[in-house]
Amino acid sequence: MTASAAYDVLGIGNAIVDVLATTDDEFLNLNKLAKGAMSLIDASRAEALYAAMRDAVEISGGSCGNTVAGIASLGGTAAYIGKVRDDALGWTFRHDIREAGVSFDTPPSTEGPPTARCLIFVTPDAQRTMNTYLGACVTLGPEDIDEARVAAAKVTYVEGYLWDPPRAKEAVRKAFAAAHAAGREVSITLSDSFCVDRWRDEFNALIRDQIDILFANESEIFSLYQVKTFDEALQRARATGKIVALTRGAKGSVIVKGDEIHVVDAAKVAKVVDTTGAGDLYAAGFLYGYTRGMPLAECARIGGFAAGEVISHVGARPLVPLKTLI
Amino acid sequence: MTASAAYDVLGIGNAIVDVLATTDDEFLNLNKLAKGAMSLIDASRAEALYAAMRDAVEISGGSCGNTVAGIASLGGTAAYIGKVRDDALGWTFRHDIREAGVSFDTPPSTEGPPTARCLIFVTPDAQRTMNTYLGACVTLGPEDIDEARVAAAKVTYVEGYLWDPPRAKEAVRKAFAAAHAAGREVSITLSDSFCVDRWRDEFNALIRDQIDILFANESEIFSLYQVKTFDEALQRARATGKIVALTRGAKGSVIVKGDEIHVVDAAKVAKVVDTTGAGDLYAAGFLYGYTRGMPLAECARIGGFAAGEVISHVGARPLVPLKTLI
Repeated sequence: MTASAAYDVLGIGNAIVDVLATTDDEFLNLNKLAKGAMSLIDASRAEALYAAMRDAVEISGGSCGNTVAGIASLGGTAAYIGKVRDDALGWTFRHDIREAGVSFDTPPSTEGPPTARCLIFVTPDAQRTMNTYLGACVTLGPEDIDEARVAAAKVTYVEGYLWDPPRAKEAVRKAFAAAHAAGREVSITLSDSFCVDRWRDEFNALIRDQIDILFANESEIFSLYQVKTFDEALQRARATGKIVALTRGAKGSVIVKGDEIHVVDAAKVAKVVDTTGAGDLYAAGFLYGYTRGMPLAECARIGGFAAGEVISHVGARPLVPLKTLI
Repeated sequence: MTASAAYDVLGIGNAIVDVLATTDDEFLNLNKLAKGAMSLIDASRAEALYAAMRDAVEISGGSCGNTVAGIASLGGTAAYIGKVRDDALGWTFRHDIREAGVSFDTPPSTEGPPTARCLIFVTPDAQRTMNTYLGACVTLGPEDIDEARVAAAKVTYVEGYLWDPPRAKEAVRKAFAAAHAAGREVSITLSDSFCVDRWRDEFNALIRDQIDILFANESEIFSLYQVKTFDEALQRARATGKIVALTRGAKGSVIVKGDEIHVVDAAKVAKVVDTTGAGDLYAAGFLYGYTRGMPLAECARIGGFAAGEVISHVGARPLVPLKTLI
């Protein structure tokens, strides 16, 4: 038995402000942008791309930030750890995530690179192409992990993207150790197939040794196991023995946990406008159900429902309180 | 150990000639036709509907007939038992199924109703609405089952539609007993959600007591278990302990066998023209692989491939030898 929890989910992620604009395929080709992927960019490339954006809007984002905002929107309790700089975008991020109902107290850095931003280009097919300048995220380290706060959360959830900044993974390891010492569970999303490509061996070892709940979409799990069919990926994921939630877009999701397996349809969406945040909100819905002890198929159903809301509009955070919809 | 088999699959079904025509939704509404379903009609209704068809083409069909034709097309060995009358349509049926490479020797009836026909209306959305006049099929009975032929087939496969004519199910029970006595396996497709509605309790008992391999699409399995989500149906199907292949159209298929489970994507199809025969050919591909000892996921892949070929053109039998394509 573990103590009662102050938070359903504590998220740790790259604290990023999204800069969104719509564009077309020609623009992606001209600027050599890999459609549908997240690319890491440096400060000068960020400046050049930003200059080319038309009618951009700024929205607090970050994969894990979106997830914890989603959990709060569903009526769950969530906290967040992530690094911004003490600049205008940093204050925006802090304001927005707190406004969403998420506890957030990580001290901003007072020197070094500015708050991270992700330049997102949305094409008419609702795909998003992301270009992340990590900025202040590179200063996140173990010193930012409050072990008491970790111990107070039922699930500590992190994004695979945290393997990109140099010291963030040390922060994750400290948090995971604290969570397990307190009898809590830990979870990760693989984030992106290119991210998996960069960190495949570390991710496989982490899943084997640490992870209780794994989230991945098709391209991520294909990359993790270097397989070409969903069924092969499913068999490999199942063999981990962990809870694995595999998201498949319009095909819904498949959840495995040892002998248990569920094939759950996607929520009906009238029109898919922008798929940014679909995976983030799926994880939010799933973890909301999971931390309430719901059956896995119901967790998946809520995940699909939350994802369905967020892809029906531009932006990666819910536009209406999700708890009023479920 | 069982003796070597003369046939991969022996099929028993309603021997039917399809009469196909394209039409629109308005025609379906005017004639009170339940879109996508198979309705049983009497001789006078058959005459009236046939008179309303424009540019109809006749093609030998019958769900199980299509399946055994598919197995032969893949390079497998197949036999068929089904009842026609000694009339023009009956000779057409016999000619076509033998031409497809299937062994067929059931003596035609020499009196009573004419050879069965299915009036199929294909709408622009590629759905088919079927109206079956059972005709000579009602005379199929246990006397048509050659037990030595059953014993010579690795799998005896029947269609749920056989529960509609009065004595066909007695023929099925005789065949299943002969198959199991010879150490062979037996399989059924649920055929149609309305058919399941008519025979739900008998089908459930049959699956529990007799069936080794069950085929069903979503609406059929929903009807069998009277559930509303795929995952509920999947859990119920899994609990039977039998091999169950659940087909989901563009979503592919899910195969369960106790602890084993596979989620297999549909084959890519450039343009879906007519879904008639999709389930029949899926079963053909699956059983072709199964009777060769292939892994279940590979059986499902071949099933999806065969279904993909047949929905890319009008008609429920392959237009090209499937063995040249796999």
